[in-house]
Amino acid sequence: MLSAFPSLTVSLPDWMSEVCRPGASFATADERMALVIELARTNVARQTGGPFGAAVFDIETGEVIAPGVNLVVSAHAALAHAEMLAIAVAGRALESFDLGVRATELVSSTEPCAMCLGAIPWSGVRRLVCGARDEDARRIGFDEGDKPADWISLLRTRGIEVVRDVFRSEATAVLEGYARAGGPIYNSRGEE
Amino acid sequence: MLSAFPSLTVSLPDWMSEVCRPGASFATADERMALVIELARTNVARQTGGPFGAAVFDIETGEVIAPGVNLVVSAHAALAHAEMLAIAVAGRALESFDLGVRATELVSSTEPCAMCLGAIPWSGVRRLVCGARDEDARRIGFDEGDKPADWISLLRTRGIEVVRDVFRSEATAVLEGYARAGGPIYNSRGEE
Repeated sequence: MLSAFPSLTVSLPDWMSEVCRPGASFATADERMALVIELARTNVARQTGGPFGAAVFDIETGEVIAPGVNLVVSAHAALAHAEMLAIAVAGRALESFDLGVRATELVSSTEPCAMCLGAIPWSGVRRLVCGARDEDARRIGFDEGDKPADWISLLRTRGIEVVRDVFRSEATAVLEGYARAGGPIYNSRGEE
Repeated sequence: MLSAFPSLTVSLPDWMSEVCRPGASFATADERMALVIELARTNVARQTGGPFGAAVFDIETGEVIAPGVNLVVSAHAALAHAEMLAIAVAGRALESFDLGVRATELVSSTEPCAMCLGAIPWSGVRRLVCGARDEDARRIGFDEGDKPADWISLLRTRGIEVVRDVFRSEATAVLEGYARAGGPIYNSRGEE
């Protein structure tokens, strides 16, 4: 019998320093999306998780504040989606639960699922930039959850800008490559 | 300059062992709700976070698999809602991202915000039991996010049972006491 409940420790994969280091800067939306697509691709290649990457950037300087990748299966953590890790690690890096202490944005290789969407207003980021669309992920079997139909306008109402379709086809290709290779498409009832 | 991005470690508060220990059992829905309301109340009294408590239980045996409390401000973690912690710690305790490896339920002192709602289908729990309603939290100023209007039926469609209003007035009293005492009601743009 445990005397206490376990703590949670989640670390980014060891390969992260080869792809992305603290202090690196990415000037344009294209460069930032190229990074998160590379995170998604590397996460699959190194077998550390699903085909999703994300990062929080300083909008003005382009500095990457925190990257994230999907670690659901490897970390035994249903909530360890790429966007959640990027937001959580960014909070540690900035020592604030509100990423709005700087002008920050979340760049994600795929439009967020219902959970990550719900997390975005709490995070304090001012902009969301997406690659593949929700329906691109659904098409290969990922469950994106029950999102409000007008989720983009709801974010905008909260003052969060939404930019879509940045390198959409490249981001979708990572999803498709993963599915073709037989990677696990897990959902609420475990792996299929 | 950091050579690597920070890891995430989130621990339940030190007082947890005084209120709830691994292996403890709670036979009825009322007993389980009484525990999570006590978690919410203690979290406020010990000044470790907001007035929200949750726990994952084994439906059959009543064993508490993992408790959770809101640690947003103290842990610099926008995502550290009570339900998220309970789900994440339960994943560690069961060594599975799918809490459906046992018949489990999430009991929450208040109906979930949009993020926690989105997390529930990913968690693998089979039942959600709630105390205070969404509108009870909104009334005192907490932002519950943009949830689909028919969120309860959407969970049921996914095979997740929803039980509402268990000790609703007691759970709401914790929210009201927190607001009356001037506890921070944070939202997407930081503390008000």
